Amino acid sequence: MTRSNTRAIVLAAGRSTRFKTKKSKLLFNICGRTMVLYPIKVLEELGIPMTVVLGYQAEEVKQDIETANVPNVSYIIQEEQLGTGHAVACTQKTWDRDNILIMNGDLPLLTKDLIEKLIQEHQDKDATITFLTSLVIDPAGYGRVIQEDGKISIIEEKDCTPEQRFINCINAGIYLIKRDFLEKNISKLKRSTVSGELYLVDLVKMASDENHRVETISVPYDNVRGVNTLQELWGVEQIKRSEFIKLWMANGVRFELAQSIHIDIDVQIGAGSFIGTGVHLIGNTNVGEECSIGAFSILSNSVVGDNTTVHSHSVIQDSHIGSNVSVGPFARLRDNVTIGNDVEIGNFVEIKNTQIGDHARMKHLTYLGDAKLGKSVNVGAGTITCNYNGVEKHTTIIEDNAFIGSNNTLIAPVTVSTGAYTAGGSIITEDVPADSLAIGRAKQVNKIGYAKKLRDRFEKKTNNDNNNNDTCSPKNPENIITQEDVEFNFRGAVKSNDEYREEGF
Amino acid sequence: MTRSNTRAIVLAAGRSTRFKTKKSKLLFNICGRTMVLYPIKVLEELGIPMTVVLGYQAEEVKQDIETANVPNVSYIIQEEQLGTGHAVACTQKTWDRDNILIMNGDLPLLTKDLIEKLIQEHQDKDATITFLTSLVIDPAGYGRVIQEDGKISIIEEKDCTPEQRFINCINAGIYLIKRDFLEKNISKLKRSTVSGELYLVDLVKMASDENHRVETISVPYDNVRGVNTLQELWGVEQIKRSEFIKLWMANGVRFELAQSIHIDIDVQIGAGSFIGTGVHLIGNTNVGEECSIGAFSILSNSVVGDNTTVHSHSVIQDSHIGSNVSVGPFARLRDNVTIGNDVEIGNFVEIKNTQIGDHARMKHLTYLGDAKLGKSVNVGAGTITCNYNGVEKHTTIIEDNAFIGSNNTLIAPVTVSTGAYTAGGSIITEDVPADSLAIGRAKQVNKIGYAKKLRDRFEKKTNNDNNNNDTCSPKNPENIITQEDVEFNFRGAVKSNDEYREEGF
Amino acid sequence: MTRSNTRAIVLAAGRSTRFKTKKSKLLFNICGRTMVLYPIKVLEELGIPMTVVLGYQAEEVKQDIETANVPNVSYIIQEEQLGTGHAVACTQKTWDRDNILIMNGDLPLLTKDLIEKLIQEHQDKDATITFLTSLVIDPAGYGRVIQEDGKISIIEEKDCTPEQRFINCINAGIYLIKRDFLEKNISKLKRSTVSGELYLVDLVKMASDENHRVETISVPYDNVRGVNTLQELWGVEQIKRSEFIKLWMANGVRFELAQSIHIDIDVQIGAGSFIGTGVHLIGNTNVGEECSIGAFSILSNSVVGDNTTVHSHSVIQDSHIGSNVSVGPFARLRDNVTIGNDVEIGNFVEIKNTQIGDHARMKHLTYLGDAKLGKSVNVGAGTITCNYNGVEKHTTIIEDNAFIGSNNTLIAPVTVSTGAYTAGGSIITEDVPADSLAIGRAKQVNKIGYAKKLRDRFEKKTNNDNNNNDTCSPKNPENIITQEDVEFNFRGAVKSNDEYREEGF
Repeated sequence: MTRSNTRAIVLAAGRSTRFKTKKSKLLFNICGRTMVLYPIKVLEELGIPMTVVLGYQAEEVKQDIETANVPNVSYIIQEEQLGTGHAVACTQKTWDRDNILIMNGDLPLLTKDLIEKLIQEHQDKDATITFLTSLVIDPAGYGRVIQEDGKISIIEEKDCTPEQRFINCINAGIYLIKRDFLEKNISKLKRSTVSGELYLVDLVKMASDENHRVETISVPYDNVRGVNTLQELWGVEQIKRSEFIKLWMANGVRFELAQSIHIDIDVQIGAGSFIGTGVHLIGNTNVGEECSIGAFSILSNSVVGDNTTVHSHSVIQDSHIGSNVSVGPFARLRDNVTIGNDVEIGNFVEIKNTQIGDHARMKHLTYLGDAKLGKSVNVGAGTITCNYNGVEKHTTIIEDNAFIGSNNTLIAPVTVSTGAYTAGGSIITEDVPADSLAIGRAKQVNKIGYAKKLRDRFEKKTNNDNNNNDTCSPKNPENIITQEDVEFNFRGAVKSNDEYREEGF
Repeated sequence: MTRSNTRAIVLAAGRSTRFKTKKSKLLFNICGRTMVLYPIKVLEELGIPMTVVLGYQAEEVKQDIETANVPNVSYIIQEEQLGTGHAVACTQKTWDRDNILIMNGDLPLLTKDLIEKLIQEHQDKDATITFLTSLVIDPAGYGRVIQEDGKISIIEEKDCTPEQRFINCINAGIYLIKRDFLEKNISKLKRSTVSGELYLVDLVKMASDENHRVETISVPYDNVRGVNTLQELWGVEQIKRSEFIKLWMANGVRFELAQSIHIDIDVQIGAGSFIGTGVHLIGNTNVGEECSIGAFSILSNSVVGDNTTVHSHSVIQDSHIGSNVSVGPFARLRDNVTIGNDVEIGNFVEIKNTQIGDHARMKHLTYLGDAKLGKSVNVGAGTITCNYNGVEKHTTIIEDNAFIGSNNTLIAPVTVSTGAYTAGGSIITEDVPADSLAIGRAKQVNKIGYAKKLRDRFEKKTNNDNNNNDTCSPKNPENIITQEDVEFNFRGAVKSNDEYREEGF
Repeated sequence: MTRSNTRAIVLAAGRSTRFKTKKSKLLFNICGRTMVLYPIKVLEELGIPMTVVLGYQAEEVKQDIETANVPNVSYIIQEEQLGTGHAVACTQKTWDRDNILIMNGDLPLLTKDLIEKLIQEHQDKDATITFLTSLVIDPAGYGRVIQEDGKISIIEEKDCTPEQRFINCINAGIYLIKRDFLEKNISKLKRSTVSGELYLVDLVKMASDENHRVETISVPYDNVRGVNTLQELWGVEQIKRSEFIKLWMANGVRFELAQSIHIDIDVQIGAGSFIGTGVHLIGNTNVGEECSIGAFSILSNSVVGDNTTVHSHSVIQDSHIGSNVSVGPFARLRDNVTIGNDVEIGNFVEIKNTQIGDHARMKHLTYLGDAKLGKSVNVGAGTITCNYNGVEKHTTIIEDNAFIGSNNTLIAPVTVSTGAYTAGGSIITEDVPADSLAIGRAKQVNKIGYAKKLRDRFEKKTNNDNNNNDTCSPKNPENIITQEDVEFNFRGAVKSNDEYREEGF
């Protein structure tokens, strides 16, 4: 196989002005992978060493590739953007194989099979240049492939005559060229009189004119779609996303409104699982078997055990959930949450950087941050861990079988030990020993008839004001009392203990 | 009409291996009804008694049908899965009518009209066998219908020659056969040399060869789509869903992004209502007239009165909401909530197993469980009912015109009687008499200048640490103070009353 | 240009019975604008004065147009709905220009270019009548345009013969007619023998028969789609929405699942921004550059500064958010919230009618209503402002650098001054002076071993009950203790201080 005798040049220097974004188009994420990494991953899989030509946002593109740990990558900076011919010329010192595979960086739908086929044909026919073409309905934006009188050439769109623009056989931007030919001819490219650029594609005409063997392989357009606008990016992502959906459907995953679901390339889903409308499975998310992920939930870089239900409208990031767990709806887990098996996490619950043991329950309006919960812990509705004092984060520890009453405030660092209870409404500032009961709340007092008294006084006052102020509508009491001279307050419903005292309480 | 002289055999025994799921494909829910129930409901509507052949997950399929209360259903277990011919043979003892209507269990788009037409044609032409065919673009997976030299036969795909596979007239899997013919010939079926199965479709060739009258009716593919993969299930559900959407559109319901909305078969929606993007109306949900259901809300087995608005991102299960009510966004109602008219329920509010009277309001961050609220009750933000002590659930009663202050904790069983008030931040452990004011909170104390003192001390300490530890960056104070020797805490912001005491407080 | 010599008549009187809604179809909102305003805005842009014929819901339609501040609009009420000819006749007193442009009110996809072209052609050819036609696949519902023997006429669908119904050249409902001709002939229209209505389109036949010049311009159907059913409304909205999506894509905005996103006509989005699945950008919403609006968020009449992230599942109404802000997920801002720069607003947070300074943080389960927060304020998790006492709304003021501890209750009117702290779990009823610490909570007491004692007693009781009552299953303790004679309670987990006292606490 010529494969081992091939080096690739990936053209990743362009400005992508039609994107209208500061960020290079090559750095846009498509289903969990930046655009530039798609062709590079194909080359990696084939074991082909590559030279990446950088230019616009060179540092960012380089860093993106390096983060992906692709081996055998060299980088060349193209300082001036003088066209594809110039870009390839810049890489000459890296041409260490007999065949040079040149491709654009914006080919996110490229497959390994296509490149293998290209290499095979190139080798079988002993061609000087072999390149991929495609027949398309709308060729706008692509170089046109012209074959006449046994000769072949590619005209870049900018240089096309109006008639040539109607040609719908396009150049896909993937070429395999013998190094010898490339070395002899790369310096012969001339600047386009239209754009002033050096066009790599002019090598095709040169080779053809000199009767070198030039081969083309026509491939499906969907595999070689380039991406020059955000609308084209959308189209490519649609295709990519549907590939993943079909793959997982074939593996026993049911999708509700499949066309609305976002699945990244590295996601795994077990058979028998259900994925609801609009769900996002992002990054390295791994969903077990027989799970249900409810509509509008977003899971990112998280693991979900078997038979677990994530109800709708939940957001789970960087977390690890066990089996037979119920989460949500309206739950948010983030920043390294680890949850055991048979746990119930309810609605309006946020959990951050916390470990939770098996059979624990926290079902309503709760915030747990920087906490460690043992097994069979119950956390009452409305419980808040105070893990932050404006400067530091502290840990809350709740041991096995502890029961935290509703609407508790747990001021960390604090430990509620095994089997301890806390009374509803308590503020827990001190450790609670095992099997003990902690109470940290005020005693209730009922002031008999006082609500009526307040109401009567308020109404009397309102009536007086009305008599004094004819412009005030009695239908709109708010206007009457939002003045500075209101003589008492029963806000929320009562202001302070001092007031009760004044009232003889 | 032959209808009264017809018994149906529904073939529901198959393993559906291409689904790759443990659960039988026949038990998958399509718009609120399991797949197997669709043809069965058509037969029920036509008053045709039926025999269901069970095999894979026989118990689950049987239970599913029994739950739907379909009358006149007999069940036969096919112990070994030896093909459709064998399946029908197993049912012989139930053949109590002159015509036997045989159909696959995976025909969720079948209509009553099609079966009526089949019966009519069969009768009019006095046919021995009449069966449904369809012309399709991609016949893969279906038996092919072959008509030549005046003879007709069906070849199962497994047994097709490569040429036969190109035939695009398919067998839809719905046959009406005279009982006499069936009785004489069912035992003559021979095992396929390819698959080893007994094919029911071989009866067609037998009848045709013996010059019995065999009729076909060509019907639209969309009505007889079989479902053998999860992708085919998706396709069928798309068709079903769009039927319901179009039906309700024609009845005066506006859908925002109609293609994103999920409506089950038993849902009702009143004219003038608006249904937002992604809304799920599940089960027996009934939405009144002139309602608005906001985007991303999910209503399941619930009733919504006229002129009611359910704002976006709400989840409502098994509940009954009155008229002129406003719910959400981000509200969750579940497990038998009943709400009167003119009620306002706001965001991050969970209500469970609770009755709420007219004109009540609970607008923010509240959990009401196992409660009974009278008319014109106001529940302040952050209020929590403590209905659960780890063992039992208790009831909270809030009577007419009571006003619950913000951030209250109501420890059930407890009653706040008519016209009573509770002060903001109270923990209510005792009943509050009518027209009384309950206060259950601590008095505030301001420690003048103490915040600055804490801050200064903290800064001093931080500076000292910096002097002692050159590796610590002064830009990252968190690194400095997250050590065990911090000499005081002002977490959340202050640890305990003891600390204040030490400070001379 | 004849434009200045043209008056338009907009036919907006119809009942739109096929909508099946009380509300006139003309008042339905399509991407942020009512249907009737689309053609009116085109006329406004062209500077053409117009007469709007009102009938069904005349007052509502008139008010809708007036709210849009369109100049040069006269209104005529068509009391009886006797057809388009009658509607136009009603407007005769307003015919103050030489040419009368008559159009239906339900043309939401009409463009300025089309009307300019109509006027130009009418003028260039000195036509008596010029009208727009379109070739369509399914002409159902439209008048058919018949040209034969050099004559031209329009037959309304109701009056079509079965053969005429197959004609697929339709009348688009937009006519430019010389006033002279109109004045002479409008009174000659005769009632249809089929419907009893006066048809405006009969003028075409009259003009043609009298050898006046009648011109047609064939235009794309998508620009002249009428809307007579809610399904047609859906189709039109699909087209409109995709126009806006493509526009913003071309301007550097990335849409995730573009087909799921709702953008109104007056929305602005900066380059480099990302708009997630299902996002709604409503009304005058303005999103800055390099922003990210997470999936399922809804922004209405709000401004978002540059580099701001609105996380998923957030609902933002009538608010103004600065730059470099992080909001959500699950945040709700409403009713005039103003947020500075570099602010962090977290999950399950509701903010209403509140101003927030730069660098402030409120990240968890919080309600702020009618508040003013300074710079660098930190609001702890679970904090609630009590701004409402059942009658009035009061203001909470939190000054620069103040730190509100977790689970606080702030009872307005109240001020926490610069640099002040409040302890976790406090109920703040009094102003907190600058740099001071406020504490308003009870002291915690641990009752050693008491939790175990309660548990033991509970278990003992349960066992006793079991002995006494054989029908009670020991596996279901809830059945045992939900009786009135339970001798003590440890609900939530403890009832009242009195109970502890009885226990010798």
